[in-house]
Amino acid sequence: MAASFFSPVRLVGVIGSDCPFDLAEVFAGRNVDLAGLEVREQSKTFRWAGTYHENMDSRTTDRLELNVLAEAPPRVPDSFRDSKFVFLANTAPRLQHQLLEQIRAPAFVAADTMNCWIEGHLDDLKPLLKKIDCLIINEDEARMLGKEHNLVRAGEKILDMGQGVVVIKKGESGSILCSADGDKFVLPAYPATDVKDPTGAGDSFAGGFMGHLAQSGKTDFETLKAAVAYGTVVASFTIADFSLNGLNSIERADIDSRLETLRKLTQF
Amino acid sequence: MAASFFSPVRLVGVIGSDCPFDLAEVFAGRNVDLAGLEVREQSKTFRWAGTYHENMDSRTTDRLELNVLAEAPPRVPDSFRDSKFVFLANTAPRLQHQLLEQIRAPAFVAADTMNCWIEGHLDDLKPLLKKIDCLIINEDEARMLGKEHNLVRAGEKILDMGQGVVVIKKGESGSILCSADGDKFVLPAYPATDVKDPTGAGDSFAGGFMGHLAQSGKTDFETLKAAVAYGTVVASFTIADFSLNGLNSIERADIDSRLETLRKLTQF
Repeated sequence: MAASFFSPVRLVGVIGSDCPFDLAEVFAGRNVDLAGLEVREQSKTFRWAGTYHENMDSRTTDRLELNVLAEAPPRVPDSFRDSKFVFLANTAPRLQHQLLEQIRAPAFVAADTMNCWIEGHLDDLKPLLKKIDCLIINEDEARMLGKEHNLVRAGEKILDMGQGVVVIKKGESGSILCSADGDKFVLPAYPATDVKDPTGAGDSFAGGFMGHLAQSGKTDFETLKAAVAYGTVVASFTIADFSLNGLNSIERADIDSRLETLRKLTQF
Repeated sequence: MAASFFSPVRLVGVIGSDCPFDLAEVFAGRNVDLAGLEVREQSKTFRWAGTYHENMDSRTTDRLELNVLAEAPPRVPDSFRDSKFVFLANTAPRLQHQLLEQIRAPAFVAADTMNCWIEGHLDDLKPLLKKIDCLIINEDEARMLGKEHNLVRAGEKILDMGQGVVVIKKGESGSILCSADGDKFVLPAYPATDVKDPTGAGDSFAGGFMGHLAQSGKTDFETLKAAVAYGTVVASFTIADFSLNGLNSIERADIDSRLETLRKLTQF
């Protein structure tokens, strides 16, 4: 949804028959190709339940059911195999790897991951990091993976693991972009006054980030910086409401307008 | 020390005879007038001891001895009474008030405060907020004073208490500047890789901030934004070493050079 404001999107994913939404309806009118969406009648959809703490940044997982995500990954349709900009959303690194292998010649691959894969599946994650161009990760995960508390140094240690770019998301404290060439960019979060639900902020950030790269067709550092800014802005709309309501109530012009506001707020 | 890189400084303060430093020696060669420094032979110097936690932002006070700060404030020398840019460093709000009353016609007054005054001396603090132009405060204190978790809203509630500008310092997450006119500015911290001791970061920030205002002689919002950036940069040198070592090992040109680096790091 977040990326579709910028560029056509090809969605690959798998849900069970228990999914309470009709995804064709959810994405109606959006430039999102659902040919890669698989519904497994005998399986149950991934579910997560958690509690956000006072600062809306840290959260506790109350219940995690991998369900269908613990099974074989969905098949990438033939019509998707020429994709150039690929985002591997958070799932088991082995599955991310299997999905990536189905893309013929990607130009830029970014991946998300999370604490349970860093802790329990590092042997799968490390080879994946050598196959991708960019890791998008939150600050606690960066510290865990980099084995380093200072985030700039953690970022540098993660870059040593292979991929050329790392984006560290710090919630309401913004984000840091580091490249293996030594370039750095730091951006505060959009100073939102109304935060209803931060769920999906990270995925919305990744969607805006990848969407801008795909739209511009470039991945130089200046474009990556703008992509971080677009990701920041899209996430700021997501957290203003529950579910996809924040994104459903805006148009592309609202994103561009808030990007200019963010630029004004941060320049001196 | 931080402000003296920018502008002549007139220091007003009081210490006991137990102070382990010769302050004339500490400030030798700096443009700091010590005519307002009082040494009370029968008193003991203020002391603080604390423990920094892993993230270097939160800390626990292990020991606090107000000592001489619990006594009458020092006298402002006649030669200082025409000062235009005044910073009331953290002490009891009643003492800050008594110090400010000795300045004839200040152009811009900023004050720091801390949790113990917000909790225990709000009746003294609130009238002070109506007499100053700017409150410089850290994020926990802003939440406590504004009775609001969201920092942008906390800033707005603090502005309602009277002063025209509030600066909220968020440690390694940067700072937010809000004015009663509705202007806002958000700046990340300088992405430092070597943090030895954050003690004094807030005072160094205030010194750089006030120093730039005094040097430029202006307090419009663009100048305030630059002042926040200078404060951020000066603090980044302070935390790289213990005591004043970080500031003793640099020159003004190092500050300007890092300001340009910070500008490059944050622009898109």
